Amino acid sequence: MSLLTTINSPADLRQLSRPQLVSLADELREYVINSVSKTGGHLSSNLGTVELTIALHYVFNTPEDRLVWDVGHQTYPHKILTGRRDQMHSLRQLDGISGFPRRSESEYDTFGTAHSSTSISAALGMALAARTKGESRHAVAIIGDGSMTAGMAFEAMNNAGVYDDINMLVVLNDNDMSISPPVGALNRYLARLMSGKFYAAARNVGKSVLPSPMLELARRFEEHAKGMIVPATMFEEFGFNYIGPIDGHDLESLIPTLQNIKNLKGPQFLHVVTKKGQGYKLAEADPILYHGPGKFNPEEGIKPATTAAKKTYTQVFGDWLCDMAAADDKLIGITPAMREGSGMVEFEQRFPKRYYDVGIAEQHSVTFAGGLATEGLKPVLAIYSTFLQRGYDQLIHDIALQNLDVTFALDRAGLVGADGATHAGNYDLAYLRCIPNMVVMAPSDENECRQMLSTGYHYPGPAAIRYPRGAGIGAVIQQELSQLTIGTAELKRQGKNIAILAFGSMVHPALKAAETLDATVVNMRFVKPIDNAMIAEIANSHDAIVTIEEGCTMGGGGSAIAEALAAAGLSKPLMILGLPDRFVDHGDPGLLLAQCGLNAEGIEASIRQRFL
Amino acid sequence: MSLLTTINSPADLRQLSRPQLVSLADELREYVINSVSKTGGHLSSNLGTVELTIALHYVFNTPEDRLVWDVGHQTYPHKILTGRRDQMHSLRQLDGISGFPRRSESEYDTFGTAHSSTSISAALGMALAARTKGESRHAVAIIGDGSMTAGMAFEAMNNAGVYDDINMLVVLNDNDMSISPPVGALNRYLARLMSGKFYAAARNVGKSVLPSPMLELARRFEEHAKGMIVPATMFEEFGFNYIGPIDGHDLESLIPTLQNIKNLKGPQFLHVVTKKGQGYKLAEADPILYHGPGKFNPEEGIKPATTAAKKTYTQVFGDWLCDMAAADDKLIGITPAMREGSGMVEFEQRFPKRYYDVGIAEQHSVTFAGGLATEGLKPVLAIYSTFLQRGYDQLIHDIALQNLDVTFALDRAGLVGADGATHAGNYDLAYLRCIPNMVVMAPSDENECRQMLSTGYHYPGPAAIRYPRGAGIGAVIQQELSQLTIGTAELKRQGKNIAILAFGSMVHPALKAAETLDATVVNMRFVKPIDNAMIAEIANSHDAIVTIEEGCTMGGGGSAIAEALAAAGLSKPLMILGLPDRFVDHGDPGLLLAQCGLNAEGIEASIRQRFL
Repeated sequence: MSLLTTINSPADLRQLSRPQLVSLADELREYVINSVSKTGGHLSSNLGTVELTIALHYVFNTPEDRLVWDVGHQTYPHKILTGRRDQMHSLRQLDGISGFPRRSESEYDTFGTAHSSTSISAALGMALAARTKGESRHAVAIIGDGSMTAGMAFEAMNNAGVYDDINMLVVLNDNDMSISPPVGALNRYLARLMSGKFYAAARNVGKSVLPSPMLELARRFEEHAKGMIVPATMFEEFGFNYIGPIDGHDLESLIPTLQNIKNLKGPQFLHVVTKKGQGYKLAEADPILYHGPGKFNPEEGIKPATTAAKKTYTQVFGDWLCDMAAADDKLIGITPAMREGSGMVEFEQRFPKRYYDVGIAEQHSVTFAGGLATEGLKPVLAIYSTFLQRGYDQLIHDIALQNLDVTFALDRAGLVGADGATHAGNYDLAYLRCIPNMVVMAPSDENECRQMLSTGYHYPGPAAIRYPRGAGIGAVIQQELSQLTIGTAELKRQGKNIAILAFGSMVHPALKAAETLDATVVNMRFVKPIDNAMIAEIANSHDAIVTIEEGCTMGGGGSAIAEALAAAGLSKPLMILGLPDRFVDHGDPGLLLAQCGLNAEGIEASIRQRFL
Repeated sequence: MSLLTTINSPADLRQLSRPQLVSLADELREYVINSVSKTGGHLSSNLGTVELTIALHYVFNTPEDRLVWDVGHQTYPHKILTGRRDQMHSLRQLDGISGFPRRSESEYDTFGTAHSSTSISAALGMALAARTKGESRHAVAIIGDGSMTAGMAFEAMNNAGVYDDINMLVVLNDNDMSISPPVGALNRYLARLMSGKFYAAARNVGKSVLPSPMLELARRFEEHAKGMIVPATMFEEFGFNYIGPIDGHDLESLIPTLQNIKNLKGPQFLHVVTKKGQGYKLAEADPILYHGPGKFNPEEGIKPATTAAKKTYTQVFGDWLCDMAAADDKLIGITPAMREGSGMVEFEQRFPKRYYDVGIAEQHSVTFAGGLATEGLKPVLAIYSTFLQRGYDQLIHDIALQNLDVTFALDRAGLVGADGATHAGNYDLAYLRCIPNMVVMAPSDENECRQMLSTGYHYPGPAAIRYPRGAGIGAVIQQELSQLTIGTAELKRQGKNIAILAFGSMVHPALKAAETLDATVVNMRFVKPIDNAMIAEIANSHDAIVTIEEGCTMGGGGSAIAEALAAAGLSKPLMILGLPDRFVDHGDPGLLLAQCGLNAEGIEASIRQRFL
């Protein structure tokens, strides 16, 4: 680590000789492996961007020039080289540095990212701002081939391609991977771009010794082939100057190419080929396993978990999906490129003809499900709570307005821990319950999650089940595919004076808090339709009502109860507990919930403070 | 009208001879012009699709084969030919037929549309459903060149392009128009595809008499040019079989081409060129003016309005934008392809370098604004309330989470009248106020709208101003660019016993209702941050509180007041008025509001029923 320890900013990096950069890359790669093995985090993608990161900071004058890293979980080398080497031990931990770029963390983090495919839009804004202000700075977006499939990236390319006087570069980091294996036509296209050097070969024909009429013909073909009706690549059709593909692990290719590009005006597109997990054999062999590992011993690699841990909600969903698919051949499972994260690996294996990975394409995934539903099939869209934010209009127009029978399985509802605010599904209850025709549920345990999935599935309209990241309480899961009655809450504990109306993951902490308070606890189960009868009964038999949910309090489940009380003409002291009106940072989920007062102690304390 | 009156379904159409179809097209065009001139509605786009509609229903076996019309405001010929000719007089009116396709209206309307770029996704769902069920039906998406620029269309193309065994056709209806003039790289690309027949010309070279080595060279070039590294068109790169461009007004081209395509397996792409306004000289000359006219005399055309009507909120915004731009050269105006609808025509003329039409690209528009804001510029994104539903995740991640200084001017908030449920901005208060860092405002009149725009503009973080479609109350507008104090409500009328806390457009009906009731009226102005002090003061001095807003009651402004009361420990009888929890159909806005109880009489009646 003789070189790396001397690099406290990219300015230091730019003092090194080119041969030194190669050694630096080796040290940086080792540092990433060691660091991630101690903290957990993203590994494969960061090993793939070591040389690219060095080359970009070497050639571009950061932070004056702007780097925008799409998705951003591949920025550990960037963080290490921009003054945060000694903070890597705190990565993704409470009060530590973020696993994503973050404007408040460093001036080198020009734009916060996490969900994919935003980088070109942001970089275009920066490039046009520079043009407006008469500044010559460059804006560079670095985007993976998976992220390129999202529509937003095309919207940005379509917009950027017409500005021939901007200093803007899009680097396509082509590693042939989303988190899941790649899908879709664009991926096939990139494979064709890669495998053949056909175009280059065709051009060279013109240079060989040919009789002059043939040379003329070749020249005319080349004219046609290049820039007229058949541009060389799709990216040129979008108005970009395409360069590549080049080897993204070869600094001797990267640096001169970037230096040349830096002198070109207008939108530039550099196609770089990298390998996820590069330089760490175990990750190269299984980049999906090493995509986002926990702590591990770098010598031994990731070991299978030895003890049978409690099932995660993701697994509960995956099991249910297979069981329901076996019971009903109308079931279709859809994921927008999150096969592993959504627990659909087994489903794909067992029901390949009813499995659709539509790519990173949340908008499309929702309407595609709608199209299937119009034909009498029963689509189940597995989508993280925050990713559904990308298909919100489609959910409103294409599903809810037409009252189509689509089941939404929303994973990662509530706080998510290490990934932080960008992945925390805190808003779904608010943004879903305001939409007519929706049924919205939140399970209090694993078995109820299974029941709710069956309930939503059989409900002949749009239904969403939102469940948290990670394991539940360890409830026994009944194998039968039983349903709940729509809109019915469940009295969990009869107490006195104070009633806690709890949603989803907060039911069990509420029960614990209720013990010392002798409070009543209701598992609300349905956010919409809400159980008005239960609410009235509770209000009439208690002095005060407390609502609690792992979600934003503004417009959420507690708000629904406030509305129900108002509509029923019931005026009772009411306390609405939930996540605060601020973005909650990364950290251990238990600690974060405690900080927000959303554990048994916190609930009890809030109630005592207000009512006792 | 001898032919048209005999067509009560596409089956009748399919009995006609090919020459009769040409006459039918003439009659149909005339019927559309007459019909729209009486009801108002969309004209230019419907004149452009007359022949295409006839050809599709002639060749495909509708409704067994599925037609999905993107955007859907070009489906009047389709409606007329599918049994709704005699209902066209009720178009877009209360209890009449919709101006968009609607599943509940006809079995020929396979998918409801209105916002653009959903058709390929829906059609792919239908095509894969047919494959799953072993049915041979076809699914056809008809999409305009403007709609093709939205990312969602690319997401669907990317997904569809890999299924080589589906019966699916995408018809690109290329009329070189969005509602506004076309923008972006894709538009330039289509222009190149159109203008040159370069590729066709290049292919023909190979057929001329050439010495055999040259023929061989030509053949090799053609191989390379077609299907290998340089497919003929971008659409082939996405895995579609591209056919075209052909003349979309020539039935003798359309019908044989569609018949051929019908026999091909796998994703097909037909590029059809049409002219907006075709066949009506006035509309051909000014397709934007005739995009969505009110009633007019077809002989005379649209006449300029003679009396100076009250300013619309759209005009108030447009004026403010120019004034603020003149005062601050950091202002940047952005529209996702709605220059006219958002009132930005004058701004573009006066400040062309600070005007960006980013295309139909709502996701991109939000993040692009974020990129500009990181560089210290002050973007104002003019976007309809319902279109922001398409940029929701971007608003959360790219703007609110980073607390970037972007002003959102949300037009068409609340009911919109003739366009119906798809364009009604009923959810913005709910989906925006749950997001941390947001400031959300709703003006009660035109002058306050201007003040709120200035307030949001100067607020150094994300702020949204949501204002209704159409004219306000005719308030005098002060020229100065004055601001409001963030989070302060305004007492409009001091009354007794009952207090009406009103948001935005409901302030004035509330004031009227309050006269007979002698109720207090507060103009809340800010949905977030809400004025807790005012709410507490009102609650402490009144017997009951009524909230009212032109938006969904679930999670909206009234809900915010319920939360505020609960947090302050104030228990008062509370009635939350607003839009009902159902999708409200098209019709006269005044009638619709009355039906929802959101006029002075309705407010008074609701209050009397509950409290008096």
